[in-house]
Amino acid sequence: MTSCREESLAYVGKLFDDVRAMSQDGPGVTRQGFGPVETAVLERLTEEGVRLGLEIRKDDAGGVWMTLPGRNRALPAFVAGSHADSVPQGGNFDGLAGIVAAIETARRIKHDGIELERDFTVLMMRCEESSFFGKAYAGSLGMMGRLKESDLELKHRTAGTTLGDAIRSCGLRPERLTTGTPVIDPKRIAAFVELHIEQGPTLDSDPKVRTGIVTGIRGNIRHKAVKVVGETAHSGAVDKCYRHDALLAACRLMSRMDDLWDERLAAGDDLVFTSGVFRTGENAAISVIPGEVTFTIDIRSLDDATLERFHNMLLEEARKIGEARGVEFIFDKPLLTAPARVNGPLSDKLAEAAERAGLPVRRLASGAGHDAAMLGNCGIPTAMIFVANQNGSHNPHEAMKLEDFVAGVDVLEAAVKDFDRNRHA
Amino acid sequence: MTSCREESLAYVGKLFDDVRAMSQDGPGVTRQGFGPVETAVLERLTEEGVRLGLEIRKDDAGGVWMTLPGRNRALPAFVAGSHADSVPQGGNFDGLAGIVAAIETARRIKHDGIELERDFTVLMMRCEESSFFGKAYAGSLGMMGRLKESDLELKHRTAGTTLGDAIRSCGLRPERLTTGTPVIDPKRIAAFVELHIEQGPTLDSDPKVRTGIVTGIRGNIRHKAVKVVGETAHSGAVDKCYRHDALLAACRLMSRMDDLWDERLAAGDDLVFTSGVFRTGENAAISVIPGEVTFTIDIRSLDDATLERFHNMLLEEARKIGEARGVEFIFDKPLLTAPARVNGPLSDKLAEAAERAGLPVRRLASGAGHDAAMLGNCGIPTAMIFVANQNGSHNPHEAMKLEDFVAGVDVLEAAVKDFDRNRHA
Repeated sequence: MTSCREESLAYVGKLFDDVRAMSQDGPGVTRQGFGPVETAVLERLTEEGVRLGLEIRKDDAGGVWMTLPGRNRALPAFVAGSHADSVPQGGNFDGLAGIVAAIETARRIKHDGIELERDFTVLMMRCEESSFFGKAYAGSLGMMGRLKESDLELKHRTAGTTLGDAIRSCGLRPERLTTGTPVIDPKRIAAFVELHIEQGPTLDSDPKVRTGIVTGIRGNIRHKAVKVVGETAHSGAVDKCYRHDALLAACRLMSRMDDLWDERLAAGDDLVFTSGVFRTGENAAISVIPGEVTFTIDIRSLDDATLERFHNMLLEEARKIGEARGVEFIFDKPLLTAPARVNGPLSDKLAEAAERAGLPVRRLASGAGHDAAMLGNCGIPTAMIFVANQNGSHNPHEAMKLEDFVAGVDVLEAAVKDFDRNRHA
Repeated sequence: MTSCREESLAYVGKLFDDVRAMSQDGPGVTRQGFGPVETAVLERLTEEGVRLGLEIRKDDAGGVWMTLPGRNRALPAFVAGSHADSVPQGGNFDGLAGIVAAIETARRIKHDGIELERDFTVLMMRCEESSFFGKAYAGSLGMMGRLKESDLELKHRTAGTTLGDAIRSCGLRPERLTTGTPVIDPKRIAAFVELHIEQGPTLDSDPKVRTGIVTGIRGNIRHKAVKVVGETAHSGAVDKCYRHDALLAACRLMSRMDDLWDERLAAGDDLVFTSGVFRTGENAAISVIPGEVTFTIDIRSLDDATLERFHNMLLEEARKIGEARGVEFIFDKPLLTAPARVNGPLSDKLAEAAERAGLPVRRLASGAGHDAAMLGNCGIPTAMIFVANQNGSHNPHEAMKLEDFVAGVDVLEAAVKDFDRNRHA
């Protein structure tokens, strides 16, 4: 006879393994948002909902809602879930963990024969990473009707197609997602809780407290393609004083921002800075001075003012370096995502539920953005549970111990039951 | 009735235009060494040799020799020419100018009814730029039997094929070019003169003296692919102290070398430094800290010791930056090309011939390497004539005034006639 814990570990282990096998790409996994692998994964997980007897519904943004009905269907639901997509060659748990946690919570409640007062719904969303198109949270923004028409024109990073094309290829109408009106009814959601791997080293550095309750979510300012235009020339025949080397100008900017980042951290700012994609032009060659460089920018902070200040520093440094070197920095339109507060009372309730159940949790900030922030911005009370993980995320070596994951599910389960008991109205 | 000058301008103008039309690629031209466009260009120019009644011969490295026979066939020939290939989307005159100059010289001698004592030969070589494979002077090195077997394995920059494959596709046997024995008889060459655009701004900055006689050729140390290995991670969730960002490390190295370059120039070194191709890994994304960067290096100097010193500085800086940032720089084997001296007496003869003909010339160094250096290294007396040009070279905006070119041909023609008169033995 197997214990409940062993059953839980086996069940979630198999779900993770099945999805990994469907999306394996080299050492990691690739599940493009609004792409065929993501669709197949959603179908596999929907089968699981059917098996558990959940009510299945698909919204106009491609999200899948799988509901364990409560006694009182008039009450707004407790919703838990996350996104099904991944970055290219990323890890298996980023996003998927939140979906599997919600499914496992439903399975446990069902298995224990508990009848809830209100609906408990598993929500599986699409295209949160959106690395293929550069606009983060495209799926949940679309669900809230908040995609912009210009977002739909964003080009796939390698193919010639757009985000709009990808949405359409899933049998959805992209124009429905830009109306400003949600495709769902936010009032029908009493609480949204997203369980997620931490993606950072904080929880993993503590051997005892492996679960976190999130206090806030970093916003970001992104540039999808900053172009540096200099002048190509022969690498041997042109002396330094005559050069307009786009690469050395771009590298100088990066080094300068690296130094300014240190200064801002020393001043106490919450700040991270990344240029994820950086390359010389297509016709670059070993014996040609680079006349073109293109790079991305991703600045993140819990604080609006910090974001704006560092972004201004970037523009100003680029201007100075460009002027000194006869090189032009051409910035595309910045893409903004405001920092987000989680719902304080709901987060407190999660912490209290954990405490009552004897589960240790720690409060911590979220460095990454999440769908939860999008839902929170639309007035839905949201909170997040973090699970310790190894090797960060967005890389093939991302890892998570199933024991830690199951401890996170314990907190989610306790929160669902606690919420159900104490907020029947 | 047209003057000789007008005839000359019209003739060379048409040759340049015809070849440009065959190799147009966007605003520039692309003629891959040992590729089909280069082959077609050689065929077009060979037709021109046939029309002028020259004797045509092809060597085992794909070079084409077109000879205007002299009275005494036992004498070694005066040879002039250059290469037919170009960098990707480069200019039309780099290489081609030296071939057209030699053809035009033959045409003039023939047209004037002058009978030379010794053979005058137009030499059209292949694959000097070799940007597609990274090993410069592959054609002339092959002609001298000095390609290495490992050179033949060098991969095409985008296709999966090798330099050896490309050579074979031209109906040649690559293994013949690595034997150490030239495919031609160097003793049959009394002098080799290569006319070339300057590729730098020196001659063009002087309104009066538009032709140069070269004093020396910069050598280089190249790396085809330096790899920087850090650690990919989520761009928002990992704080600075936990990062191993391959891009910021590589940018820091470039900025450091840029500073050291200034220092060496101030110390009087002849030195240029270029990283022509520089890019984050294939799976790079806007929201992922770069775990991999690859770049090329091209260091050039007239002086061996300067090359070695700056290359050592590069290795040492990379080591220090890598250590400080938990990032590894992996250097591929450096490709070396020694600086070359041109033949002093032959260069003096060129200058004297120009002076006697009332043609103004200036002595200057060559920043770029040339096939002439390869031939010189094998004991052939070589010299170079430079022609003023605009916008450098290795870019689509490279330009040259036909008047300047024809003035350069005047110097070549004077040198051929002078050499023929004064060195009959």
